[in-house]
Amino acid sequence: MGTKEWKFRENRNLRTAATFSIKRVLDDVNRNLDRSDGRPIIPLSHGDPSSFSCFRTTQVAEDAVVDALRSAKFNGYAPKGGALQARRSIAEYLSRNLPYKLSPDDVYVTLGAKQAIEVVLSALSRPGANILLPRPGYPVYEAHAVLNHLEVRHFDLLQEKDWEVDLNGLETLVDDKTVAMVIINPGNPCGNVFTRDHLQKIAETARRMGILVIADEAYAHLTFGSNSYVSMGVFGNLAPVLTLGTLSKRWLVPGWRLGWIARSDPDGIFEEHGVVECIKRSLITNTEAATFIQAAVPQILENTTDDFFVQTINILQEDADMCYKWLKDIPCFTCLQKPQGSLFLMVKLDFSQLQGINDDMDFCSKLAKEESVLLLPGFVLGLKNWIRVTFAIEPSALEEGLARIKAFCMRHANKQ
Amino acid sequence: MGTKEWKFRENRNLRTAATFSIKRVLDDVNRNLDRSDGRPIIPLSHGDPSSFSCFRTTQVAEDAVVDALRSAKFNGYAPKGGALQARRSIAEYLSRNLPYKLSPDDVYVTLGAKQAIEVVLSALSRPGANILLPRPGYPVYEAHAVLNHLEVRHFDLLQEKDWEVDLNGLETLVDDKTVAMVIINPGNPCGNVFTRDHLQKIAETARRMGILVIADEAYAHLTFGSNSYVSMGVFGNLAPVLTLGTLSKRWLVPGWRLGWIARSDPDGIFEEHGVVECIKRSLITNTEAATFIQAAVPQILENTTDDFFVQTINILQEDADMCYKWLKDIPCFTCLQKPQGSLFLMVKLDFSQLQGINDDMDFCSKLAKEESVLLLPGFVLGLKNWIRVTFAIEPSALEEGLARIKAFCMRHANKQ
Repeated sequence: MGTKEWKFRENRNLRTAATFSIKRVLDDVNRNLDRSDGRPIIPLSHGDPSSFSCFRTTQVAEDAVVDALRSAKFNGYAPKGGALQARRSIAEYLSRNLPYKLSPDDVYVTLGAKQAIEVVLSALSRPGANILLPRPGYPVYEAHAVLNHLEVRHFDLLQEKDWEVDLNGLETLVDDKTVAMVIINPGNPCGNVFTRDHLQKIAETARRMGILVIADEAYAHLTFGSNSYVSMGVFGNLAPVLTLGTLSKRWLVPGWRLGWIARSDPDGIFEEHGVVECIKRSLITNTEAATFIQAAVPQILENTTDDFFVQTINILQEDADMCYKWLKDIPCFTCLQKPQGSLFLMVKLDFSQLQGINDDMDFCSKLAKEESVLLLPGFVLGLKNWIRVTFAIEPSALEEGLARIKAFCMRHANKQ
Repeated sequence: MGTKEWKFRENRNLRTAATFSIKRVLDDVNRNLDRSDGRPIIPLSHGDPSSFSCFRTTQVAEDAVVDALRSAKFNGYAPKGGALQARRSIAEYLSRNLPYKLSPDDVYVTLGAKQAIEVVLSALSRPGANILLPRPGYPVYEAHAVLNHLEVRHFDLLQEKDWEVDLNGLETLVDDKTVAMVIINPGNPCGNVFTRDHLQKIAETARRMGILVIADEAYAHLTFGSNSYVSMGVFGNLAPVLTLGTLSKRWLVPGWRLGWIARSDPDGIFEEHGVVECIKRSLITNTEAATFIQAAVPQILENTTDDFFVQTINILQEDADMCYKWLKDIPCFTCLQKPQGSLFLMVKLDFSQLQGINDDMDFCSKLAKEESVLLLPGFVLGLKNWIRVTFAIEPSALEEGLARIKAFCMRHANKQ
C-alpha cells in the first residue's frame, strides 16, 4: 500500500503468552473431529458443565440478575474495584469460612477468576521478579506471568502424596526476587483437595520465605471426598493471602464473568507494603464486570439454598466415582487417583501398553478423530504425556464417553 | 513477618499507567464536595447519562438480555473473539455505513470499547514501537501504551479548525517504528465530528506514512450538528482501519460491557501482515464479554427502532444548545465551540478573568466544593487549563448545573 511499506512486526511476548492456552490446544484437538461420525461429541476437555441441563444454575441466580437488569439502576459504569453491595456480600460469604471477618474493602470484584489472575500478576510484577507456580497447573498463570515479565519457577505437586506441594523443592526456588506462590485448591487439574494440615505447612513455608500466597479457590466447596474445603485464608495470620474466587464453578455460570480477589490478611501486610495500592492501579487499567451482574451478587450469595449445592455435589460425586471405576481398568492409564474435588482428574499414559500413539497430543487427537471424545493433553498444564479428564458432564454422557475411551485404548493396545 | 523480610516493591510502569485515569482525577475532584450542601450534585464530569430516566435504554435491549439469560443456553464460556451470532450481527450493523460488507470474521467482541483499546494496543506493541495519539484525547490509550511499552507521540487537534487533526504536524512524528495513529470520531473530548473530506485526508496520510488507523467510534451516530457521522472504515481501501465500537453510548448501557473491534480492511492487509493473528493472541489472554449479553446483541442491533435513537439525539441536541448558550456568556471560558456530536465539549480557562484560581484542577475542585457541580480538568486529557464539560444529563439538571457554574465564575471573576 502507498509509497511506504506497511511495517508491522509481531510482539514475541504476546506470541509466547498465547501458547499457554488451554483453548488453543483444544482447538488443535478439535480439528481432528470426524464430522461424519453420527455420534454426539463427548466433551471431557474443559470445565464448563453449564450446557448440560442437570448443571443448570439456580433460579435464584437467574432471578437476581433479571431483577437487577429490569430495575434499570445498574446500566451505568461500575465503581473501580466493584459495587459496594457486591463487595460487602462477598466479604460476608467468604468470612463464613474464616476465623475473622473480611470487610468490603478487602474484596475486589473481577471479571471471573481469570481477570483476578490478570490483576494480581500485574500488581505484583516488577523488573526481575519471579513467581512460583505449581506443576501441573493452570496455564493462565504462565500466560500472565509472561505478559508481565515475571519469571516463572515451577514447584511440583507430588502425585504419590495426593498432589501435595513439594515444599522442600519449593524452598530451593525462592530468592529475594520471589514475590508469591500460587496454589489451586480444590485442585485444577488434579482433583485433589489439600488437608488443613498441608495448608498450614504451606503458610508456614511462605512465612519463612517471606512470600505471599495466591490461593486460587475457583473450585471452593466443590468437594466430595474425605478432605473438605478449607480456605487458605484461614492461615492469613501466618502469611498474607490473596484468595481468588468466582461464581463460575459453584453456580455453574462461567459465562457470567463474575469473580473476586479477597485479601485474607488480618495483620494488614498488604496495605503496609503497598500491594493494595498496586492492585487498585491494576484495576484502573482493567475493565469492570457488568454492573447489573454485580448488583445481583448479594441475592445470589445470600439466597441460594443448600439443595442446589447438594444436587451439584451429588452429580459430581457420581461422575467422579464412575470415571475412576472405568479408567482404573484401562491398562494404558496409570497414576490414577480418585478425585476429591473440582471437576478434573489426571492420568498418565503408559506407552508400553499402547501402539502407534506418540504422545499426549497424539492420543487426544486420535481419540477425537476415532471416537468423538475430547480430552486435554497434559503438556499445556506442565505434565507431558498425562491427560486431564473433566468428568463434570451429564452422567449418562460421561458413561458413553468412558466406554468410547476404553474401546479406543483396547484398539490401540500393545498386542506384543 | 517471619524470619525473612517481606519484600514487595511496586511496579513503576503500573504506577505511571494508572496516572492516565479520568476516574482517578475525578476521585480527587469529588473529594472536595461539601456534604453539607443540601443541593443535588450535578455530574458534568463523565460520559454516563444512564442514571437519568430520560436516558434509559430501550425495552428492546433489556428484553433481549433477559430472553438470553432465561433461555439458560448462554451460561457457559463464550468463544474467543465472541459468539458467532454476535459477530455476524455486528458485521451487518457496521456494513450499513460502509461501501463494502464486513464478515463475522472481521469482528471481535470485546468488553466495551475499553477492552478493545487494550486488545489492539497489546496486539500492536513490539520493542521500540511508537503510536500516535491525539491531544486532547482519551487517556485509556496512554495507559495501555505505557503498559505495553509503546512510546506515545502526540499530534494536535486544532481548535481553530473544528478540532481537525494537524496532519502536517502528524507527519513529522512518524518514523519506521510507528505502528498506528488513533482518531476518536465523533470526538471525545471535543464534541467535534470530522467531515468525510477530513477523514479521507487522514486515510491518505496514513497510507503515505504506511501506518494503520485505529478509529475509535464509541460515539458513532451520536451527532446533532451539520457534520453527520461517517465511519473511518469507508476509507479502508486507502489505509487499513481497526474500528472500535460499543453498545455503551448509543444504547446508554456502559455497564453492560459490550463492544467490538472491526477490521475495515477490504484489501486484507491485516491478515497478510500478521495483525489478525496478534489480535487473536491478545484476545486469548483477555476475558470475554458475558455470554448471555453477547447472545442478546443480534436482537438489540436488529430490533431497536429509530424512535429510541431520535429521542436520545433530541435530548442531546437540547443539552448541547443549552450548554453552549450558557457557557459562551461566561467571560472566563474561551475557545468554546458548539458541539456537533458525542457527549462533551472543551472550554479553555482565561485566567485574566479569574481571581484566586490556579489551574484547571483548582477550578474543578473549588467548583465541586462551592457548587456541588463536577467537571473534568483538561490536564488528564492532555490540555492543561482546559475543562471538559459533559452535557449529556437530564436537561433541567443541566440548566441548574450551568447556572451554578455561572454563579461560581462570577463570584471568582477578576474584579480589576
